[in-house]
Amino acid sequence: MPQISDRGHTMPASPIRKLSKYADAAKARGVEVLHLNIGQPDLATPPQAIDAVRNFSGEYIPYSHSAGNITLRKKLAEYYNAIGIVISYEDILITNGGSEAICFAYYSILNYADEVIVPEPFYSNYYGFTTETGARMIPVRSTIESGFALPSIEEFEKALTPRTKAIMLCNPNNPTGYVYSRNELEQIRDLVKQYNLFLICDEVYREFCYDGEHYSVMNLQGIEDNVILIDSFSKRYNVCGIRIGALISRNKDVIATSLKFAQARLSPPSLGQIVAEALLDTPQNYIKESAKEYDKRRKFIINELNKIKGVRSPMPKGAFYSIVELPVDNAEKFCQWLLEEFQYEGSTIMLAPGNGFYTGKKLGDKQVRIAYILNIEKLTKAIECLKHALAVYPGRTN
Amino acid sequence: MPQISDRGHTMPASPIRKLSKYADAAKARGVEVLHLNIGQPDLATPPQAIDAVRNFSGEYIPYSHSAGNITLRKKLAEYYNAIGIVISYEDILITNGGSEAICFAYYSILNYADEVIVPEPFYSNYYGFTTETGARMIPVRSTIESGFALPSIEEFEKALTPRTKAIMLCNPNNPTGYVYSRNELEQIRDLVKQYNLFLICDEVYREFCYDGEHYSVMNLQGIEDNVILIDSFSKRYNVCGIRIGALISRNKDVIATSLKFAQARLSPPSLGQIVAEALLDTPQNYIKESAKEYDKRRKFIINELNKIKGVRSPMPKGAFYSIVELPVDNAEKFCQWLLEEFQYEGSTIMLAPGNGFYTGKKLGDKQVRIAYILNIEKLTKAIECLKHALAVYPGRTN
Repeated sequence: MPQISDRGHTMPASPIRKLSKYADAAKARGVEVLHLNIGQPDLATPPQAIDAVRNFSGEYIPYSHSAGNITLRKKLAEYYNAIGIVISYEDILITNGGSEAICFAYYSILNYADEVIVPEPFYSNYYGFTTETGARMIPVRSTIESGFALPSIEEFEKALTPRTKAIMLCNPNNPTGYVYSRNELEQIRDLVKQYNLFLICDEVYREFCYDGEHYSVMNLQGIEDNVILIDSFSKRYNVCGIRIGALISRNKDVIATSLKFAQARLSPPSLGQIVAEALLDTPQNYIKESAKEYDKRRKFIINELNKIKGVRSPMPKGAFYSIVELPVDNAEKFCQWLLEEFQYEGSTIMLAPGNGFYTGKKLGDKQVRIAYILNIEKLTKAIECLKHALAVYPGRTN
Repeated sequence: MPQISDRGHTMPASPIRKLSKYADAAKARGVEVLHLNIGQPDLATPPQAIDAVRNFSGEYIPYSHSAGNITLRKKLAEYYNAIGIVISYEDILITNGGSEAICFAYYSILNYADEVIVPEPFYSNYYGFTTETGARMIPVRSTIESGFALPSIEEFEKALTPRTKAIMLCNPNNPTGYVYSRNELEQIRDLVKQYNLFLICDEVYREFCYDGEHYSVMNLQGIEDNVILIDSFSKRYNVCGIRIGALISRNKDVIATSLKFAQARLSPPSLGQIVAEALLDTPQNYIKESAKEYDKRRKFIINELNKIKGVRSPMPKGAFYSIVELPVDNAEKFCQWLLEEFQYEGSTIMLAPGNGFYTGKKLGDKQVRIAYILNIEKLTKAIECLKHALAVYPGRTN
């Protein structure tokens, strides 16, 4: 029998999805599983955007342009211009979700064994995509004690090697919820400029900043050709399933090169693009209301979590995640136990084990990522579950 | 300014799409462009399948399972079983078009610099995806004289090295239209078995065989763990834009490994999956009628082409493409000239230059790939254009 590749062996299973089979089994036993493991919210999408696809009038469903429909790209450019990011539609490629935008960026700038520096903990799939590309992800630690603020620039400098090609940020951060300040981003800008690096920034949670304004890397002066922005419609409008994201750069070579990768896969989803274009016509108020709702959930769950003895979570400033420290022997074991052996009044919770958001497997082994995307009623139930679970879990510490 | 990767430089532009800007400019001048360059047909999709998405009743559009909706996978397994390919839904991963299925197969089995042997001319994007993966594509020549039949097994053996990991076929073949016989496939089976290779086969045009039955690699005995099947809904039902394909294998390691890559990109498009599932409920007669229509177009255009002095095309046996030899100095130059400088009664044609379907750039430079996906009226016009173009093209030979 022929063998799987080394890359295939090294590829990490997603910490967000790898326990799914245990969740399926729990559901099959009649247990309600409260999903705090995944950023799949419950808010309604603007209905007129779903109507756009309900009104699809074509006789067949053709390919689109490899870069995405020009009408969508032009409208998306207007959205950026309205929020102070001045770009042209020619700086935009529409992708299969933000995920594919990351892949195109990596393919376009990374050779085999090149390195990308990323603050740790990081969105686990960055590690997956780096592995897929044959490149290496070099972590720089941020800590729960600092609320996961940007590590010092000295730490980044220590991580630099001749193979360093890029720094990657997620702002607001998934999984920590930290929002990088303009000052922090300007320090990164100086570093990027000094060492002639690319700066890739994933800003899909841009509108979900609760304690201040978001500052985009697209507005950092003097590194216009270094910056690649990753974006997505998924979270902003709760349309994770349309798989429409975007790669944005003022660097013409990056766009031209990424377009070659885009041509190879033919086109992004046509039906999703119809929804995305209609979404750009919905009132901005929709996003503001969503942010208000997440803010309410954030305050509720973080306060409740910190009331539980041995549990600690910083107050996230943005997105809808937090890294939470638990009084357990091993968080992954605990997450699996929650699904396999625990229930409280017919319910249990699914959490994402923290170790998948770090490169070293020992790191994060007392932590989980939670997504506060359920309503307050369900979050209340989730908190009850967690309290009771920690009271009876055999591997409880302190 | 930081630099693009070597992989980015090496990545070929798609021969099918790279002349698009000249086509756009021609259209802007008011010229009708008859697209023979791309496999985007004009037949209506079964309307009840489009109705399925028109009836979408969700309040938001969530992620699906990373492997695709289980209902879709189960129905797709039934489709295979009905056509004599015995598999379970657990052998299926739903992907972003056939394109992503190829990428997952490559990631799962190829290390950097590993080699895949492919009969040449080949579907150009195989070369793109191999480049993306950091692997190497090793061509084995098929010739227009033999109608692009399978090269001899000795040629494959000559191409083997210690780095050879797989043989890749497309059956029916894009771009040549050749359909590999059971006998040819059994020779490949013996080779694959002897050298412990993977066999990847793209069978997206399975139902479009005009001169006999299709034989699937999934039915080759004794190499069950070696075979990876690539499939897609796109061509069968004219839904290229839904971006729903599939990777199928009885090799559990291939499926488990590909699932890790699938989890990293979260999920295939949710709306496309709704259409795909409904398509599997449409009468099989739809596909038979489509095949009858393509067969009519095939005979018409190939006969007309061979009547033009200096033009030659074998009669393709399947799919809806043919590689056509033209009496021109350089086919790519000719294709560009058709869009930039030629028109006949307000129309011109867009063709895909042949060199993009070969690894050596000199090969195929008198050839083009045509897709006979337009109706007879338009194909008649296209033939008229080609005749007149060849009469006045400055680089005409013989």
